[in-house]
Order: sequence, then structure tokens, then C-alpha cells
Amino acid sequence: MNAPLPTHLLPQVDLRPVPDAFLEALKARFGANCSTALVVREQHGRDESPFTTVPPPAAVVFAESTQDVADAIALCASHRVPVIPYGVGSSLEGHLLAVQGGISIDVSRMNRVLSINAEDLTVTVQPGVTRKQLNEAVKDQGLFFPIDPGADASIGGMAATRASGTNAVRYGTMRENVLALEVVTAQGRVIRTGTRAKKSSAGYDLTRLMVGSEGTLGVITEVTLKLYPLPEAISAAVCSFPSIEAAVRTTIAIIQMGIPIARCELLDAASVRAVNVHSKLSLREEPMLLMEFHGSPSSVQEQAEWVQDIAQDHGAEAFEWATTPEERTRLWTARHNAYFAAIQSKPGCKAVTTDTCVPISRLADCLLDSVTEADAAGLPYFLVGHVGDGNFHFGYLIDPDNPQERETAEQLNHQLVTRALALGGTCTGEHGVGLHKMGFLLVEAGAGAIDMMRTIKQALDPDNILNPGKIF
Amino acid sequence: MNAPLPTHLLPQVDLRPVPDAFLEALKARFGANCSTALVVREQHGRDESPFTTVPPPAAVVFAESTQDVADAIALCASHRVPVIPYGVGSSLEGHLLAVQGGISIDVSRMNRVLSINAEDLTVTVQPGVTRKQLNEAVKDQGLFFPIDPGADASIGGMAATRASGTNAVRYGTMRENVLALEVVTAQGRVIRTGTRAKKSSAGYDLTRLMVGSEGTLGVITEVTLKLYPLPEAISAAVCSFPSIEAAVRTTIAIIQMGIPIARCELLDAASVRAVNVHSKLSLREEPMLLMEFHGSPSSVQEQAEWVQDIAQDHGAEAFEWATTPEERTRLWTARHNAYFAAIQSKPGCKAVTTDTCVPISRLADCLLDSVTEADAAGLPYFLVGHVGDGNFHFGYLIDPDNPQERETAEQLNHQLVTRALALGGTCTGEHGVGLHKMGFLLVEAGAGAIDMMRTIKQALDPDNILNPGKIF
Repeated sequence: MNAPLPTHLLPQVDLRPVPDAFLEALKARFGANCSTALVVREQHGRDESPFTTVPPPAAVVFAESTQDVADAIALCASHRVPVIPYGVGSSLEGHLLAVQGGISIDVSRMNRVLSINAEDLTVTVQPGVTRKQLNEAVKDQGLFFPIDPGADASIGGMAATRASGTNAVRYGTMRENVLALEVVTAQGRVIRTGTRAKKSSAGYDLTRLMVGSEGTLGVITEVTLKLYPLPEAISAAVCSFPSIEAAVRTTIAIIQMGIPIARCELLDAASVRAVNVHSKLSLREEPMLLMEFHGSPSSVQEQAEWVQDIAQDHGAEAFEWATTPEERTRLWTARHNAYFAAIQSKPGCKAVTTDTCVPISRLADCLLDSVTEADAAGLPYFLVGHVGDGNFHFGYLIDPDNPQERETAEQLNHQLVTRALALGGTCTGEHGVGLHKMGFLLVEAGAGAIDMMRTIKQALDPDNILNPGKIF
Repeated sequence: MNAPLPTHLLPQVDLRPVPDAFLEALKARFGANCSTALVVREQHGRDESPFTTVPPPAAVVFAESTQDVADAIALCASHRVPVIPYGVGSSLEGHLLAVQGGISIDVSRMNRVLSINAEDLTVTVQPGVTRKQLNEAVKDQGLFFPIDPGADASIGGMAATRASGTNAVRYGTMRENVLALEVVTAQGRVIRTGTRAKKSSAGYDLTRLMVGSEGTLGVITEVTLKLYPLPEAISAAVCSFPSIEAAVRTTIAIIQMGIPIARCELLDAASVRAVNVHSKLSLREEPMLLMEFHGSPSSVQEQAEWVQDIAQDHGAEAFEWATTPEERTRLWTARHNAYFAAIQSKPGCKAVTTDTCVPISRLADCLLDSVTEADAAGLPYFLVGHVGDGNFHFGYLIDPDNPQERETAEQLNHQLVTRALALGGTCTGEHGVGLHKMGFLLVEAGAGAIDMMRTIKQALDPDNILNPGKIF
């Protein structure tokens, strides 16, 4: 395994011409919904990634309908101008950066929940609907959408990056939970993939091809998702451990026993400390598992007892229940804020975030060696993880203007990814490739699979206008 | 909705040349593992579909390794000769028929279980391993592979058709349970898709693109699958109903309540009658649900009680438990033999099998209207279904030499598919498109999605040598 260093140390910028005639046509079509104001363009030319040196897009179109998206892309196609879809801007991997210029299509105004089919446990939404908005819309029917990447991301963006998060250990990822899509192609054509049927063998799985394609094969304009009945009973627990290893080995045992745990999150002591400060909590500042159980009251009880036994076998030091909805919400809000809490613990810093995912049996090997390396490197970091899936994130806290710190962080990430790939894992469990992991993807997928991906991209988008410069 | 009649009334045969030089090169490379004996070719030129008029392939290669497959395809590529992968021949849709000539690659000798990773609940197998063989290989480790299409199909074939079956209501289909593949491309190149990590956002989902591509995008030479811990408790029940409608409405209520039932199968009275004769059982010859519950003893108990209550609310007439493994096996074997039992009930007949799948809320509408139509048509039929998924199969029993019966069956299927598509469903839940559903797929997917599928096919297999003439 000999991965090249990530290409993003110097993001490759190669601006393509954006003809005046194109911009005029765009303004004529979209009027006030097309902005070339610098502040708007700058807002759409960055995301949560640590990339700061790429010029913003030439214009931003605020799409209000599928037709808007189709018309904007048709215009881009006729002038070979790149187009980057934008939801809420929560990407961590540079997906939104206009490295080849072009325009941004902001779909945040396409934020209607189009139809809730409670009897079928499905919902169809526009791409700008956020996950919290969706859950708000369906909760009165006793339903919820479990995919929860932490940020209040847009459903379109979550589909485009194949997002997952804390509930994936039980409910799967966007891969498993998107039933059907409406997509605008590179030619500006509107197509539909999939149906509302729960399963199908009808031709190529275009839905799954689009999910995770990061805006490079089409722009998502409608998403049909699975929903789930709100569990009859929910119980959350925090459990502190004497070491990260004890927490990880507890997790491995839970998964290998097939316990249907709904959430199983690791926070290292530094993350707990940051969360305590940020969210005014008083959690024990030790490695911690934050868990949740869903089911009937008796099944939740049963799962919790099993897990408590396993945790105690691994030296758990405290096991506390969050029984009320308020306590649970407080804990999970704290967990979701861990990223921002950590960032705020070092003023002016940015986080270089890792996203490896390995088979559960290799989780301890992969994670613990990387902890040793990070400790030795001396860079402050936080460590959180959807460890029930074998997925975890180091966030190395760097001064973005300090090349030495950036290089140290990239070196640590490089060592971690190299290790994860050697253990049968992936360089990105849920954030996507974007600009950051293009070098890693080459090593992970191999030349043959990359060639196949490139061939598909070339066939569907021959002028390479859809989010060019990303993935490969 | 105005679906054209299925194209298979006269399967379109358009044989391409198979040069002597190619056949000589094939024999030189494969020796005794390449057969041109008529009986062998004929065996590989048919499947369980009612198509009988297509000439057999020109030769059959018995591949014993990935290298064999790669070499055979490279030879085919250099002579533009079609190649059709063959597992056990259980396709129902004409996938294996050499409608454009060429050769068959039989992978049934590639039947090794390569590695069982019990700790990660994964297994890697060669494509010729059958599902029963796989379950035999992993049961000592307390594991099982749930996907069960009835026939003892090959894992490669199941992946290629996106198969599912009786357990899909709880465990998903091949779409959800294939983690990674090794595939030989149309150029004879060996690629790998996916890793053993449970989730990934690393580039295009080539695994899901290959799953369900019916041998048209590549030949699968290795499959990595999810496994599951054998449930601590399993309980099966048969429940008779006064009408199909009562059974269907019970199913809908079970699913809408979110009960994690593991199997929920409908048999109509005719099917129960055929099964009784075939398997020497004495089940009540009434519409029946055959159900199974998996979990801890208390959770199985709980599920069973809920379901029993629901069934009684819908007028269930008898609810009987199969408590011993032997009784369970006997029942499920009978269910799996329903197809053959029905065929044998009318000597010399063939079944024209439907495979629609609709959102669960539309199941009653879709199914009951089709029962009425079938009854009115006067053709004998059986009706079985994975109704928990909204998927069911009519088998219209026809004399294959009677054009009138064939046309009546096709007309019924046509009406059923038209109805299913109008209700938001799919023409094929699990059997694939093959030759039989090409016309339906056009209507279901729409011109835009079909064009995208064709573009991908054209890009990856420009000479159209991989199972040509199927899907579209």
C-alpha cells in the first residue's frame, strides 16, 4: 500500500472561461435569482473544508424548481461552463469549490416536502429540504428519517455524498434509504430513477449510481426516501471507559453479538472536554460511548442489559441512563456539536478531518495505532466515531496559515488511510472524496475501477461540466 | 400508462458470426473445459423461462478461475463474440438464452467459499457457490445468509439479477447485502468494486451498478456478502384466511406497524392445494400466510402476539405454530416447491410468471384486481408472494404449444404490470428484466433513464459482447 500524498495540499485550480454571453443569458433567464455579488459568490465558493485559496464561482443561481435547474444546466452545457450544486454548504471535503470556475446552483429554495406516504413509510422531498426540517414534517405521523450526519445538511447534499452518521449502524446510509430520484443530466434533461416500490430488479441501479456521485453525474432535484416508525421506546446511555481500547472492544463485542443498537458513538477524552465546555455539561472527561436503543420497551430493556454486561466486562467505569427526551436531546446535541466545540477550543484553527471506515474486527488495530501516532505528532486533535460501523473521525486542529501544521495533519491522515486500506477498509466512510481524497481513491479502488468510473463520467458528461475536478 | 406488449412473444434472434478461428483459439486455451457438444450447449441455452425457440450457444467454457473468465472474455472481445455467464440456470426471464449467439461461460466450478470473516459478519465466495452451499459453510460459526429466492441459485446469478425472496422483508435484497465484487469487464480486465467496510463514500457505487446488471456490464467472479448471526429464536406460523383480501390486509397492517417480521409469504388456495399434493402436507386449502419471526425469545414472542392479534382482527381462521426446526423446514421446503408443485399440477405446462412489486399501501388494489382478471380469463394459475415487500407472482399455467393460452397469459401480465406501474410500482421485484420485460422497462423507467442505461452500456461494452439483447 503506497498511497500518494493527497493532492489537496495545493488544490489544483484550472479556471475555464465563463463567456459574457453566457452570463447575460443566465441573468436574462433568472433575473434576481441570479447573483454575481461577490459576497454571495464567496459564500457559495467555500464549505467546511480547510480549503481557502480557490476563487469563487462566477455567478450563483437560486433555483426554485426542477425546470430552473434544467434550464441553468442547459445554458451551462451550451457554453461548456461548469456547474456546482449547493445545498447548505456543510461539505467537509471541498465539494463546493469552483476549482474549474463556472457557476453554483443553490437549491436551498427548493425546500418543499412534496408528499408523505405514511402507509408506505416513504416521503418525497425537494433537495433543499434539510434533515431537521424533514423530521419536523413527518413526526406528527409517528415517523422519522434516521440518517443523521450531525450537521443540518440538505437531503440533496446527503444523497450526493452518500452520507450517514450516528444512526447508520442500525438504519443504514443514504445508499440504503434513497428509493428514487429525479435528476437533471449534463444535457439538461430531467430523468427519474427508481420507483416507490421497496425493491426492484428493473435495469441498472441508476439511483445508487447517482447517490454518492457528488454532483458529477447529475444534479438531484427530487429525492424519495424511506421513513421509519418512531420507536415505541428509546433509551440513551453514556458509558465511560478507562481507555479508548476498552470502549472500542466493547463496541466490537456489541456488533459481533448482533445487538440491534441504534447509535454507538465514541468520543475521546479531549472531545468530551470540549463538549463539556461548549454545551455546559459535566460528563466524565474520559473515553466515552454514547449509545441509543430503539424498539419495544422490553426489547430496549433487553438490549440495554446485554450492552451493560459487555461494557462491564471491558472495565466500564460508569453507565448512566438518559431517560427523558430532554436529557437525550441534550446529549445528542452535545455530540453533534463536538466538531464545533473542538474547533472553538483552539481559536482560529481549522480541522483536517479523517473519515476512514474499516471492518469491525480491525477497528481496534486501525484506531489505536492512529491514536499513538497522533499523540506522538503533538498536534491537538479530537476523535469521535460512529464506531459501531467501524467509522471514525480524527480532527487535527491546525492553524490554516501554518504550512508545517497542515503538513503534519496530512501526514497523519495519510498514515491512517494507508493503514485502513491495508485492513480492508475505505478512505471515506461518509464524507465523500471531493478534493481531499482523490489520491486515496486511486489507491483504494485501483486503476481498473477508476477507469470504469472515468468511462461512465465521460459517457454521461462528455464536456465535464458537472462539478469538474472532484472525485478523480 | 400504455405499455407495449412484451417483446418476447417472438424473442428476437439475431445471431452474430462465431469465427472458426475464435473457436479454435478457445479450444486451444481451454482444452476439455471447452465443450461444443450439442447436449452441453443445449443445456446452457435455456433456463426456467418459457422460451424454447432460441438456438444454443456455439460453445460452453467451464471456467475454473478468474483468469479463465478473463481469458475467455478477452478472446470474445478480440472476435466480437457474445458471452453469457451461466450459474445454475434458474433464471425465469430468459437471461441465459443466446439470442445473438456467442458462447456461455459456466462458472459453476468456481464454487469455493474463499474466506469467512465471522467477526465482521462477511464472507467472500466464488460466483458458482449456491445459497444452500453457502449456508452450509457458515452455519457452524452461528451465521447465515438470508437471501433466499427459493431455487438453490448461484450467488453470482443472484447478484447479477438483484435477487431477493422470502427473507427480504427483513434483511433486504442482494442490493443491500453485496459489499464488494470482483468483475471481469468487456475488455477482459479484472476489477474490484467496494471493500469489506460496512459503508463507504469512495466514488461511484460500481458494486450496485453491477448488481442487477444481468451480465451486461461485466462477469462477476467474486462476491463479498454480509452475513447475519443465526437468530437466537425462530418461530414460524401458518395462518389461513377466508379470502386473499383478508390475508393481504393483514400483511399491510403488519408492515405499517413496523413489526420486524422475517418472512411473510402469501399462498392462494390453488397453491396450497398443489403444495399439499406435491409435499404430502394437509394444510387448509384456503388463502394462507406463511410467516417467520427472528430474534431473542422474548422479542419473537412479542412479534408473534402482535401478528396474531392483527390476523384475528382480519378474520384469520386458524393460526398454527411450527415450533420444531423439522416442522419449519418442512413448511418452507413446501413453499419453495410451490412453483414446481403448480407446474406438475398440469402435465406438460409451462408457467408465465409475473413479478410486480408495489408500495405496500397499494398491494390490495394491485393484487385483488389482478385476481379478478385472472379468474375471468379462465387460465389455471397459482399465486404466491413476498407480500411483506409488496411483491407477488402469478404463475399462469399454459400449454407452451398453444398460442392462444400464451397470449392470454401475456395479456394478463400486461394488465398487471400496467396497473403496478400506475400505482408507483415496478415490473420486476426480483427476477430481472431479461428478455421478458424489456418492453415494460421502457415504460417504467422512461426514455431519459433508459438512454442513460444505454449510454453506460455503450461506454463500458462498446462492441456489445456482454449478454447482448437483454434488458434493452
